[in-house]
Amino acid sequence: MIAPLFKHDTQINDASLNVIAHMPTASLSTLMANEFALKLSDTDYMRIAVLLAKKSYDEGGCPIGAVIVNNHTKEIVGKGHNTLVQESHPYNHGETSAIRDAGRIDFSQTTLYTSLSPCDVCATLLYMRGFNRVVVGDVSNACGNERLLKEKGIVVDILEDQMGISQYAQFRKEKPNQDLEDWQGLAAISKS
Amino acid sequence: MIAPLFKHDTQINDASLNVIAHMPTASLSTLMANEFALKLSDTDYMRIAVLLAKKSYDEGGCPIGAVIVNNHTKEIVGKGHNTLVQESHPYNHGETSAIRDAGRIDFSQTTLYTSLSPCDVCATLLYMRGFNRVVVGDVSNACGNERLLKEKGIVVDILEDQMGISQYAQFRKEKPNQDLEDWQGLAAISKS
Repeated sequence: MIAPLFKHDTQINDASLNVIAHMPTASLSTLMANEFALKLSDTDYMRIAVLLAKKSYDEGGCPIGAVIVNNHTKEIVGKGHNTLVQESHPYNHGETSAIRDAGRIDFSQTTLYTSLSPCDVCATLLYMRGFNRVVVGDVSNACGNERLLKEKGIVVDILEDQMGISQYAQFRKEKPNQDLEDWQGLAAISKS
Repeated sequence: MIAPLFKHDTQINDASLNVIAHMPTASLSTLMANEFALKLSDTDYMRIAVLLAKKSYDEGGCPIGAVIVNNHTKEIVGKGHNTLVQESHPYNHGETSAIRDAGRIDFSQTTLYTSLSPCDVCATLLYMRGFNRVVVGDVSNACGNERLLKEKGIVVDILEDQMGISQYAQFRKEKPNQDLEDWQGLAAISKS
């Protein structure tokens, strides 16, 4: 068996977290040993979500990412980013992308980290799939569904990541129509 | 150019509608001429949604299907069925599947036909993507989000299809846990 690259003494920084963001979920065990995963904090998982958002931005897409972590093993079980542009996908946001990646698992045993506060569809999906903890990295650029999540019994933690907040604000300034389509559909652009 | 198979005098019945249900959307123009599409009624589109649900049932999946039709050209622009089992997909319902298939279009110019009344996520997605008409084939086996859709300004028509209603009731009787997972997530099964 080939030993994973990241061990207990590997440094946690943007370079190592970025490789985690880009590696397919099913291959993460080749990259990092469990002893490395156990060192990662909420702030690190949020940064991985933000680096997934950066990946999307670099591809010409909307910069929103999400990561799902098993509460007990700290294993990353799903991750992804918005693919409105990349897949011509009308509703694949950060959260829907990570949940699709995770597949048919018990989400009540996991935490979802999202770089941006969830839209109505994603917030609804989070309670319908039985999540009990969600960590949000940017509440200044979004519509505030934290209240809905809390009403549904979900623990919501705000953990602002400045890289993610700046990145989203820059995107919104550069591509207002793409941002509007992502939130409200193509019809909203002709009305705006 | 090879002429499409279904012309103005082709009979509309379950056999021809079933071929439409199974044909990839991008290839539908090889199957049917526009003169045939213009003969199709709401009842026919609903039956196509029900035949997509049957396809899913025959694959071991949840029997829910949906079709999206351009209001002006009557072209089918998206269709699909639930893939919880087939893709291990935690939220790909009939509506999400058809919307994903349609891609990045202006949904305000379309009608969505769904074999089963939409769940909370799908109902939210329908108003967020700007749909203005939804036709529902089965309101007896579901939770009644028609009111939410109407509150959001969407025209909702109920057009019951008995084949679809019987098919869903049979599935729920045969696979209650799969049905529960589809609506409420895996955690709901251990609680039930």
